[in-house]
Amino acid sequence: MEQVCFGIDIGGTAVKVGLFDTEGTLLNKWDFATKKTGNGKDILKDSAEFIKEKIKELQLKSENIIGVGVGIPGPVQDNGDVLELANLGLGHFNIEEEMNSLTGLKVKAINDANAAALGEYWMGGGKGYRNVVLATLGTGVGGGIIINGHILVGSKGAAGEIGHLALNEEETLSCGCGKKGCLEQYASATGIVRIAKGILNETTEASTLREKGELSAKAIFDCAKDGDKLALEAVEKACYYLGLALAHVAQVIDPEAFVIGGGVSKAGDILIETTKKYYNSFVMDALKNREFKLATLGNDAGIYGAAKQILA
Amino acid sequence: MEQVCFGIDIGGTAVKVGLFDTEGTLLNKWDFATKKTGNGKDILKDSAEFIKEKIKELQLKSENIIGVGVGIPGPVQDNGDVLELANLGLGHFNIEEEMNSLTGLKVKAINDANAAALGEYWMGGGKGYRNVVLATLGTGVGGGIIINGHILVGSKGAAGEIGHLALNEEETLSCGCGKKGCLEQYASATGIVRIAKGILNETTEASTLREKGELSAKAIFDCAKDGDKLALEAVEKACYYLGLALAHVAQVIDPEAFVIGGGVSKAGDILIETTKKYYNSFVMDALKNREFKLATLGNDAGIYGAAKQILA
Repeated sequence: MEQVCFGIDIGGTAVKVGLFDTEGTLLNKWDFATKKTGNGKDILKDSAEFIKEKIKELQLKSENIIGVGVGIPGPVQDNGDVLELANLGLGHFNIEEEMNSLTGLKVKAINDANAAALGEYWMGGGKGYRNVVLATLGTGVGGGIIINGHILVGSKGAAGEIGHLALNEEETLSCGCGKKGCLEQYASATGIVRIAKGILNETTEASTLREKGELSAKAIFDCAKDGDKLALEAVEKACYYLGLALAHVAQVIDPEAFVIGGGVSKAGDILIETTKKYYNSFVMDALKNREFKLATLGNDAGIYGAAKQILA
Repeated sequence: MEQVCFGIDIGGTAVKVGLFDTEGTLLNKWDFATKKTGNGKDILKDSAEFIKEKIKELQLKSENIIGVGVGIPGPVQDNGDVLELANLGLGHFNIEEEMNSLTGLKVKAINDANAAALGEYWMGGGKGYRNVVLATLGTGVGGGIIINGHILVGSKGAAGEIGHLALNEEETLSCGCGKKGCLEQYASATGIVRIAKGILNETTEASTLREKGELSAKAIFDCAKDGDKLALEAVEKACYYLGLALAHVAQVIDPEAFVIGGGVSKAGDILIETTKKYYNSFVMDALKNREFKLATLGNDAGIYGAAKQILA
C-alpha cells in the first residue's frame, strides 16, 4: 500500500483535513466545525479523534502513515512551540507533542499562512520554482516565503508578515496591528473597498461604482475591467502598494516567483499586470521581471502545505 | 597539525588574504594591490600564486588545508557562477572551477557583502545569533542576510540588496542604480552628507557644521553628539530611513539581530539608538526590540566570511 499523510488546517470556523499521497495527490478531504466552547485544546482532541476515525474507516495501516501536518492561525516556532493562539483561546503549548500524544503519529506544525505558501509551492501556482513568495489577499494580507523549497519560519515565527510592511508614512488611519500605512490597509479586500470609498468621496464624478450599493473588492475590479475611471484609480492604488511591498521582499530575498492568492486574487490578470508594473518600477534591474502567478489551490492550499510540512 | 583555510577578499584596489583555523582564529593576514592591467582574470592568477607561495613559506601540508573561500565584488550564484564583474573587467565565468584549477584546492566563492555578513556572524558583532542581518554603511549601503547560520544568496545572487530598498517616493534625485529614494541615498556616508547639505541650504540658522569646510559623515555625527541642532536633524533623517529599511527586512525574514558596519558605523551609540527608535516604530509588535549591534571586524570582515564559506 502507498505511503500517505494527513494535512490539517485549523481555522476559526472550520477544521479542514486532507489525505495525500507523497506525490501531492489529494486522495480525500473532509471538514468539520471548529469547536468554540470549552478549552481551546478541544480543537486538537477533535482533530485527533477525527483522524483516528478516518484511519479506521479507510483501514489505513500505521506503517503507511507518514504523519500529520497541522496548520494553525498563529506563529509556530521551529520546535513546534506555540506561544499563544488568542483566536482559539490557547496559551503557550507545544502543538507537535500534544498532537503526537493524542494520535501516536509523527506531527509537524506550521503557521497557516506559511502552510498556504508551502501548498502553492508544492502543487499550486508556485510549482516548479524553488524560491517563491505567496501573498494572500483576503480580509487581511498574509504572506509566506519559500527558500530552496523550505518555508522560512524566522527566529520567532514571524517571517513573511508582509501584510504589515509599513509603506505609507502619510496614512492617518490605524491598521489592526496598531501601526499606520501597512500593506494590509491597501491590498486586502477591505483595504481596496476603503480606497474606492475615499476616491468616491473626494469627487462628484460619475462612476458605475456609485450604483453598486455596498462595495466589494470584486465589484471594484469588475468596474475597473469595464473601464470605470474611478474604479481603475482604486485598483492602481492598491496595486501600487502591493507592487512596492513585493519589491521590498525581492530586495531582501531575491525570489524567482510571486504567487498571489486569497479572495482578491480572483480579479486575475488586471491585478497581476498592474502589480507587476509597480513592482518593476521599485526594484533594482537585477530583480526586474520575476514571475507573477495566480494561486490555484484556493481554500485547499492550507491542507496541501500542512501535508507537505510533514513530508519535507 | 591543525586544519586551516584561506579567506580571500578581492577588492577594486587591494586583495586581502587571511589564514584561519577552524575555530575562526585569524592566524595570519596579508594584502597586495589588485592588478588593473591585462585580463581581469590575472587577479585570480595573482591570488592563486600568492596562496601557493604562502603555503610553501609556512610549510603547510595539503591535507591540512581545507580550502579557499573567495569574496568578490558582484553577485555569485550558488554553483560559483559569476555573470559579470564589470568593476574588474571580467565576463561570465565559474570562479570556483577557475580557482580550483589554479590552486588544486577546494574553492567556494561568495559575494563580498555576503562575506562581510558571514564574517560578522561568525566572529564579529553577530556572534551568538543564528539569524542576523548585516547593514554596511560605506560609500554605498550593502547588506547580507544569515538564516540559520547560512548566507542567503537568493535565486540570482541578489538577496540582501537592502541599499536599494525604495523608501521615499518623493525623492527627486536618482540613485546610482537608476531608481529614486533608495536607502543608499540616505544612510551611506555620501547620503548623510547630502542630507546635511540640504538642511544647511534650507535655513540660515547657525550650526557648527558651517565651520567644517568639506562635510563628512564623521563631522556630522560629531557635531550631533555635541548637540548641534541641524546635525541632529541630519542624523535623525538618515536613521529614519535606516530604521524603516531594517523594519522591512524584519517583516520579511524575522531576524534575531542587526549588525551595523562600514565607516559610518564608527558613529557608534547615537547611530544605533536613533535607528532602533525608528525601527521599533515601523515593525509589528512581535518584531520589536530585536538586538542592534555594531560590527567589530572592520575591513577584515570579508576575509573572515570568505573563510567561513569554505568551512560551512
